[in-house]
Amino acid sequence: MPDVSNYQTPPVDELNKGLGPMTAPWPVSSAAGEGWSLLDEEVSLPTAVLYESRLDHNLRWMQQFVRTYGLQLAPHGKTTMAPKLFRRQLDGGAWGITVATAQQALVAARHGVPRVLMANQLVGKRNIEIVAGLLDAPGFEYFCLVDSVDGIVQLARHLAAHGGSRPIHVLLEIGPTADQSGSRTGVRNDEQLDAVLGALREHHAHVRLAGVELYEGVLKEEGEIRTFLRRAVAITRRIVQDGGFARPSPILSGAGSAWYDVVADEFAKAEVGVPVEVVLRPGCYLTHDVGVYRAAQAQIQQRNPVAAKMRGGLQPALQLWAYVQSVPDADKAVIALGKRDAAFDAGFPEPALHYRPGKGPDGRPVPSPAHWKVTGMMDQHAYLSIAEGDDIRVGDMIAFDISHPCLTFDKWRHLLVLDDDYRCIDLVHTYF
Amino acid sequence: MPDVSNYQTPPVDELNKGLGPMTAPWPVSSAAGEGWSLLDEEVSLPTAVLYESRLDHNLRWMQQFVRTYGLQLAPHGKTTMAPKLFRRQLDGGAWGITVATAQQALVAARHGVPRVLMANQLVGKRNIEIVAGLLDAPGFEYFCLVDSVDGIVQLARHLAAHGGSRPIHVLLEIGPTADQSGSRTGVRNDEQLDAVLGALREHHAHVRLAGVELYEGVLKEEGEIRTFLRRAVAITRRIVQDGGFARPSPILSGAGSAWYDVVADEFAKAEVGVPVEVVLRPGCYLTHDVGVYRAAQAQIQQRNPVAAKMRGGLQPALQLWAYVQSVPDADKAVIALGKRDAAFDAGFPEPALHYRPGKGPDGRPVPSPAHWKVTGMMDQHAYLSIAEGDDIRVGDMIAFDISHPCLTFDKWRHLLVLDDDYRCIDLVHTYF
Repeated sequence: MPDVSNYQTPPVDELNKGLGPMTAPWPVSSAAGEGWSLLDEEVSLPTAVLYESRLDHNLRWMQQFVRTYGLQLAPHGKTTMAPKLFRRQLDGGAWGITVATAQQALVAARHGVPRVLMANQLVGKRNIEIVAGLLDAPGFEYFCLVDSVDGIVQLARHLAAHGGSRPIHVLLEIGPTADQSGSRTGVRNDEQLDAVLGALREHHAHVRLAGVELYEGVLKEEGEIRTFLRRAVAITRRIVQDGGFARPSPILSGAGSAWYDVVADEFAKAEVGVPVEVVLRPGCYLTHDVGVYRAAQAQIQQRNPVAAKMRGGLQPALQLWAYVQSVPDADKAVIALGKRDAAFDAGFPEPALHYRPGKGPDGRPVPSPAHWKVTGMMDQHAYLSIAEGDDIRVGDMIAFDISHPCLTFDKWRHLLVLDDDYRCIDLVHTYF
Repeated sequence: MPDVSNYQTPPVDELNKGLGPMTAPWPVSSAAGEGWSLLDEEVSLPTAVLYESRLDHNLRWMQQFVRTYGLQLAPHGKTTMAPKLFRRQLDGGAWGITVATAQQALVAARHGVPRVLMANQLVGKRNIEIVAGLLDAPGFEYFCLVDSVDGIVQLARHLAAHGGSRPIHVLLEIGPTADQSGSRTGVRNDEQLDAVLGALREHHAHVRLAGVELYEGVLKEEGEIRTFLRRAVAITRRIVQDGGFARPSPILSGAGSAWYDVVADEFAKAEVGVPVEVVLRPGCYLTHDVGVYRAAQAQIQQRNPVAAKMRGGLQPALQLWAYVQSVPDADKAVIALGKRDAAFDAGFPEPALHYRPGKGPDGRPVPSPAHWKVTGMMDQHAYLSIAEGDDIRVGDMIAFDISHPCLTFDKWRHLLVLDDDYRCIDLVHTYF
């Protein structure tokens, strides 16, 4: 395992989709200067773009929200897996970056993220070895979840075999109780809890308990979620009383992108007998969307007093641009944008802007007609329903808003960052 | 635009998921020798694997099928976007490689594919520039589709502006008629057909008609598909009579992975007055699956006399291996495999093999119980329904068969090629 910080970002590969012309492979550092113009068709479509002004707004918005509650932010990095965006989140005040897998933890560490919360169990010899290699690096902090005796035993065994590692710090994952409406991982009852706490005591040499964690997003109702959160606080209090944490201020962590306000509200007032470090982990706020997360955010703006008072809400910062490829029927256009380019599991992409190339320097994209809808997608195509007589032609460019940023980011190895004139001012690499 | 063949494959990036340990970035050529053992947990799971013996079988099977009909094979490369697999398809006798986009054409050309059929319209300035750069390379052949006057006018305009390019060779795309049950792109009636043929005559300096194409997979019934295919043959015959092709033997192309036998049957007997070059384009046969394409292939084995006589059928050659991450309930396990790792739009992954690490050198994976089913997926997790008392533990490895290879390949930047002992004997890069 190489040193934690020796990673050399590979150059931009000209064979990736959605890029402009390059005369040779680029070092990432020089990508910012190229200034490709989207509207002058200097970029191969389809392409995925981030709007700098909106990214910046969203970044500040969430950091301010969390700061108002006096809590910490560890944005879920799995959403973007873009180290340049991790850097901006950290520079904006984030406590650390959350990830979902050992590979994602490695990507973050190699790009200089000093503190990684892996909001998942760490399972499997090679995955544990990857993390053990990182633990050896001074100044790098890592946490993962545990919810079973088997998992703890394996962690201890593989860490012992690896040799030389510092002990691993873990958070106890709490799952909803059997009478609640959903669940994923996590201890669900007292019997499981006692078994896991026992295993942690037994394997203290290699595995240290640093806090308590949950993911409330498997439940659908605020009341249930509050009950769940209070149970996590009560368990934290009990473990404090029993002296079970290997850290003076245990971590208490929760919150996806849909209920972070409720988690903030409950955890900010948690009383467990010692100070706690509350860490929230939303990920989708950075780009937001016009689907599932817009709907969730609208609820948050209504029910949460802090969010309601803040200037503006989150803005959709990620769009896909694609060409009209064919207009074979009066009521249908075929767009060169497919399931390989956009998330489609939480609603199809939604047309937002329409632009006909060649309009000259004063031409700007205009809002696309409200009746244009994506009605189906194939691997490389989308069907757009239009009305007879609509002014739409082969070669027109359409910008699509999206629903579900995570499953859109992972379809792109690079995304373009655009200024307000639709010129590329940066590229972000992703690591999926 | 650099010379068509000057591409340097970047080294294997250790930050990609599903790999084993590397002490430094690897040149691709050396990846074959590492011999990671999947069963000894030398690979970070989840990982995507191809089984060499099955790949080889499928490769030969389809080439033999097409050869028996005396036709040509241009496998759809969009499925895998793996140039190493393109090379094997070409070495096995393929006429060329089919792609869906300009970027995919670039990937193929840069990796030495001499003949690319882009089974799509080529739209947009930058996309046309990419292809124009390739057309300048001697010995490289490229075809794309046209179905509109606007598309032809744009092709001609951007090619003229690019300067120096040879003319582009196109196939006329035929779409189903209005009374048929589905459609995507393609000319659907005589009026569109006449307009497109007129535009082709007008722009003959830059755009040359090389053949006729269709994609029958938008229809669902054999009878309709045969009608559609015969219409394409009739249109081809008419264009031959009118002297409309810029090639003595026009190309006649069709066939996705579900109806290639029917297309072979119809096109092999096509009489258009001159010899035709029939090119079939299935893509999913190489890895096959246990979902949509297994069902389609079962139909083919039943209805097609050539397929029925051939030894064996296609075999599922692509699996995903993942860990059991948590078993919070007696009837449910949570698997560390998500929507980011596997296609989920045509059925969830299906458990196939079960293995408990540490069984020693004689341990082999065993078929997983038939009642294990994936019941839901999140970004990074799958829910597996099990029965009370099943022998399943955190840290167990499960191999999943998949449905829809295309949307599984595109979630992996590298796939491992395994021998029959589950050792890695090669890596294939993908370019999505």
